[in-house]
Amino acid sequence: MHPLAERLVRGDTRALARALTILENDLEGKRGLLKSLYPYAGRAHVVGFTGAPGAGKSTLVDRVIGHLRERGLTVGVLAVDPSSPFSGGALLGDRVRMLRHSGDSGVYIRSMGSRGSLGGLAKSTGEMLYALEAYGCDVVLLETVGVGQAELDVMSVADTVVLVLTPGAGDQVQTAKAGIMEIADVFVVNKSDLPGADLIVREIWMMLRDRRQFREDWRPPVVKASAARGEGLADIWDAVTAHRDHLLRNGHWEARRRRRHERETLRLLEAAVCAQLARRAERDPAWRAVLSDHRGLDPYQAAERLLAGLPRLDDVTPE
Amino acid sequence: MHPLAERLVRGDTRALARALTILENDLEGKRGLLKSLYPYAGRAHVVGFTGAPGAGKSTLVDRVIGHLRERGLTVGVLAVDPSSPFSGGALLGDRVRMLRHSGDSGVYIRSMGSRGSLGGLAKSTGEMLYALEAYGCDVVLLETVGVGQAELDVMSVADTVVLVLTPGAGDQVQTAKAGIMEIADVFVVNKSDLPGADLIVREIWMMLRDRRQFREDWRPPVVKASAARGEGLADIWDAVTAHRDHLLRNGHWEARRRRRHERETLRLLEAAVCAQLARRAERDPAWRAVLSDHRGLDPYQAAERLLAGLPRLDDVTPE
Repeated sequence: MHPLAERLVRGDTRALARALTILENDLEGKRGLLKSLYPYAGRAHVVGFTGAPGAGKSTLVDRVIGHLRERGLTVGVLAVDPSSPFSGGALLGDRVRMLRHSGDSGVYIRSMGSRGSLGGLAKSTGEMLYALEAYGCDVVLLETVGVGQAELDVMSVADTVVLVLTPGAGDQVQTAKAGIMEIADVFVVNKSDLPGADLIVREIWMMLRDRRQFREDWRPPVVKASAARGEGLADIWDAVTAHRDHLLRNGHWEARRRRRHERETLRLLEAAVCAQLARRAERDPAWRAVLSDHRGLDPYQAAERLLAGLPRLDDVTPE
Repeated sequence: MHPLAERLVRGDTRALARALTILENDLEGKRGLLKSLYPYAGRAHVVGFTGAPGAGKSTLVDRVIGHLRERGLTVGVLAVDPSSPFSGGALLGDRVRMLRHSGDSGVYIRSMGSRGSLGGLAKSTGEMLYALEAYGCDVVLLETVGVGQAELDVMSVADTVVLVLTPGAGDQVQTAKAGIMEIADVFVVNKSDLPGADLIVREIWMMLRDRRQFREDWRPPVVKASAARGEGLADIWDAVTAHRDHLLRNGHWEARRRRRHERETLRLLEAAVCAQLARRAERDPAWRAVLSDHRGLDPYQAAERLLAGLPRLDDVTPE
């Protein structure tokens, strides 16, 4: 077993911090570390919180942490800001939170930016989850800053996705429909003491009423809350737990972990195969001739020509 | 020739708009359209404007448009907001700009979000450039909202990258060092009437002094400007033109276009090969067994096993 993994499994926070840094930045020893962490995979309930900036996600997550700690659950938090090139360093809000929970060994908070490629953010997030699960977190809260494509990608590693909306932002339900509404397992209308809270609840209900099919046969509940006043936290957590129980009861929990394994395996395989292509593009004189003929061939023609000379990878030959 | 391409080459703005939509959204007919556009590739000077939100990029780009129009150049603008899932629809600032230039057929402005995958944003941007070049734009201005990884990717298709900084944001040069400073061909200190302008100019000079190597032997100039007052526009454009002349004189211009062709070809090839992998992952029973064994194998082990059964693509065999 990797020495760092051994220490973090025993609850060593500094070992966890170091492991997360290695995983986030693709540092040396990552492969061996991951190997030691895999057996602990899939233990935690991973709950994503997403929504437009200003929806009060940070405060909400902060309150949820407190709520979970009262219930005796250990909590890991990954705060992901795809728009920031600065990773590792915490955002201001996180620093405040960290201070607040700094005396509590049952809470571990980590921020990450997108130092690497954006496409890799969901991958690093998934790998960092392994460390938090091995560390023993019962629940991992995944928080993103905005609602762009990168956030959607990151949310794909969550078991339960909570979409945080607020009253007043009238066309939220309309405009947010593309993508984000479809992945929400729980809708939270935050700041529900503001006027318009019931209106947006109704809009969500209408949107759900028009939906013909529900992913994994789960009809997302709508919960009203006020993070600032500490209201609705138990309701949120009940909804999140109900979703997890639904997944467990119907085999979806297991199926999701299987899909996660499949996705990660294919991603690694793709990376290995693309590395072979890159190597060939550097070395093969015939390839170099095609690749540098930017006046004679358009990229589609060039790619087709190179592809034609490759063995097919999708031939299913009997063994 | 694709009928749409034929019309846009003749200067039909509606045909251009339609072509851009097809390219941005991967609609049907894209392949044939691109084929007709490729012969016009590489004609425009593509100038990227990047920098932190609030640096005044929009105003600056607006002024640069005016400056270029005075010189009789036709201008295309692609405003890219990777953080927005809403594509096609213009941002507020762009709508204002569009209105301002709406009577001028020598300016075409288009906004795009990241409806597709983020990794694909640079790809779509590159393809949309083909349309603007075929339309006859002498210059294409590429504007991004922030300075994250997605923006860096988008900037990779520009011939000249202008980094816009402002006085007062003290550690800008320090903190922005990772990534963005390296790709800047021209530094613009905007709002140079504010206190601290000379300080940031000095900081940039110091940073450049410490740099041992300059990409393509080009030492980026530092230009002071005030977009709001309309000052420094000629200086900016002189610096941008000097950079283009430097590239042309030393063969870098041609080399960049060759690299762009190579990059696009490899991207298409990778997509085709990954599609084969995905097909195999669906159909091959032996692969299915490995991919669904999430309890027995970790993703690295699973990927290695599948890879071992594939023909290598980097074997350079003599013909």
